Amino acid sequence: MPAASHDLARRHAAIRERFEPLGIAALAVTHAPNVRYLSNHAGSAGILVLARDAVHLIVDFRYREAVERLQSSPQACPQLRVWPVPDSYDEALVECLVTGEAARVGFEAAHVSVARHAWLERTLHARAPGIELLPTEQIVESARAIKDAFELSTIRDAASRLTPVAERALAAARAGARERDVAGAIEAALREAGFDRPAFDTIVASGPHAALPHYRAGDRRLTAGDLVVLDFGGVLDGYCCDLTRTIAIGPAAPEAARLYEAVRDAQAAALSAVRPGIPASDVDRAARAVLESHGLGEAFGHGTGHGLGLDVHEEPRIGRPRPGAAAAVLQPGMVFTIEPGAYLPGFGGVRIEDDVVVTDEGCALLTSVPRDALVVR
Amino acid sequence: MPAASHDLARRHAAIRERFEPLGIAALAVTHAPNVRYLSNHAGSAGILVLARDAVHLIVDFRYREAVERLQSSPQACPQLRVWPVPDSYDEALVECLVTGEAARVGFEAAHVSVARHAWLERTLHARAPGIELLPTEQIVESARAIKDAFELSTIRDAASRLTPVAERALAAARAGARERDVAGAIEAALREAGFDRPAFDTIVASGPHAALPHYRAGDRRLTAGDLVVLDFGGVLDGYCCDLTRTIAIGPAAPEAARLYEAVRDAQAAALSAVRPGIPASDVDRAARAVLESHGLGEAFGHGTGHGLGLDVHEEPRIGRPRPGAAAAVLQPGMVFTIEPGAYLPGFGGVRIEDDVVVTDEGCALLTSVPRDALVVR
Repeated sequence: MPAASHDLARRHAAIRERFEPLGIAALAVTHAPNVRYLSNHAGSAGILVLARDAVHLIVDFRYREAVERLQSSPQACPQLRVWPVPDSYDEALVECLVTGEAARVGFEAAHVSVARHAWLERTLHARAPGIELLPTEQIVESARAIKDAFELSTIRDAASRLTPVAERALAAARAGARERDVAGAIEAALREAGFDRPAFDTIVASGPHAALPHYRAGDRRLTAGDLVVLDFGGVLDGYCCDLTRTIAIGPAAPEAARLYEAVRDAQAAALSAVRPGIPASDVDRAARAVLESHGLGEAFGHGTGHGLGLDVHEEPRIGRPRPGAAAAVLQPGMVFTIEPGAYLPGFGGVRIEDDVVVTDEGCALLTSVPRDALVVR
Repeated sequence: MPAASHDLARRHAAIRERFEPLGIAALAVTHAPNVRYLSNHAGSAGILVLARDAVHLIVDFRYREAVERLQSSPQACPQLRVWPVPDSYDEALVECLVTGEAARVGFEAAHVSVARHAWLERTLHARAPGIELLPTEQIVESARAIKDAFELSTIRDAASRLTPVAERALAAARAGARERDVAGAIEAALREAGFDRPAFDTIVASGPHAALPHYRAGDRRLTAGDLVVLDFGGVLDGYCCDLTRTIAIGPAAPEAARLYEAVRDAQAAALSAVRPGIPASDVDRAARAVLESHGLGEAFGHGTGHGLGLDVHEEPRIGRPRPGAAAAVLQPGMVFTIEPGAYLPGFGGVRIEDDVVVTDEGCALLTSVPRDALVVR
């Protein structure tokens, strides 16, 4: 179910509060998850213009009926005016802006290409030279980073549905099974659990493949002595959840169990570190310190986690501090993954990933699949 | 299997021929399918800088081992120099450009955001004020629009594998089945047919849902009298194929058969229209004229087709001419879909989609699933 009308109204109000400090009277929203967040329009195309007293939604013919249905439901977008797309989306956007009253219009500088911006500037200049486009960044994203009650309940529901999926994954991951077939079993289980679709390409990385953090799934058969990384997630009502477990195909090498325990302890340290008010990079540092103490600092080449919501990778980023970039500060209602890993080329790798929400005191796990000890199949 | 080294070398040479007229000495490629086309690097992250005498690939830790494997295979990218990502991709890009010899560097204006471009300009200006970034458009895309023999053979293979998938789809689409379960059967069949993943979210749109061209699949059960649009595709070695069939759950209304025949005739007219040298919009017009002659002009609100390759929507676009935009001219080796449809809100809809390659005389079908008459289940 999409968000209720009053949730949308509250989101609009929060974004409009930013207008005056930014010196804009409207915001042109072109990033699809941001359009969805503000309107419940879930299409892959669509532009939203949030004005002071109206919400303009530009959608082409394909979505007309879906938008009409939405607007006659309790999830209708308040103040909505729908604009058609006679030729192109950007021509329709120009038409909408030219008809409107805003002289200074913010646009999403991280989601509008240089080529598109040049066309819009040129066309607006010819049609209505008084309208100025101003770059903005992270306006809707920073609102989205803190989930409202509706969103939290949707993500909680999604994450809890990963438990039966994980059981099916573990049942399918047996010696002799092909990675591809295990991935198929996971995706069938995701669908049966009610997910709309996988949140990303399911990863089943066995043996040496487990050392490749972004390997997907191929024809290799699971073999005695393998570590197998199983990384999957689903999308429920637009919201993503994401889980990784690593198992061994027995008999497991003693090194496999040691690697597992180091990553598990790194994850536990990161989980304990989460609390409101600290920089997100402190969580990354907690995980990294444990892996470094095991001599695995070099083996952990990615960040500790990423925000989850309408995007499977969103704010906040849980990684090392970046020079020159302001560190995200954790706040209650933020939802992200904690997924340290260690990868030894040629041998294999371990990653353990859960989803958490920041609470007033620390964090709460949203996923609930056992991870204390290396499961050996 | 990825493209052979000599295919990559030929692609590099074709792009480098564009350098002098564009006034650039290197091209920074940031669009993932373009990076893949020029290097075989299939990761979701990566930047490629094609210089006159070297190919620089910037990839983070996650892809290091995969790139090393590739480089020791017959599909190695010639002249490759791999750059690490110590902090961010864009910092690594600046490092690569500052180290290089090109003073005028093209970038992909359609794939670099305004925010990213501003950061690159600012950072380059501070580090190496002599380096100038120049916007380019469609450089790699226009090369990709004409498939080479390796690509054609991959797409042919992919399209032929849709035949057993379509059989499974038709077998699953019976009265009483939920849309979601039919989609699950299709996706399982895609996997068994050897596809890496679905090319897009599988569409199973039944009854009134069939009037929504971008509906996906939900909980509705297929019901007597429904038209059911089944739209699915797979990715094989990176290349996409795409097929739509519409069936009826019996007994079918006479109107359903008439709608089907009109769309089938529109598709046949479009297929007959394809030949090298004509504007792509002529193919669209051929389909549209047939639907208009049936009074269904308003019911066909989308374009007739889209290019297929490493992207599921790429050049050429087969649609109405756009004012001010140069029409694509069909050339041998172009691969695209032909997928007219007609949608009647409340009643349902029909779409029929096949994939074709432009030949010297006309076109050849890549997909081979019967479509002459409305199948009634």
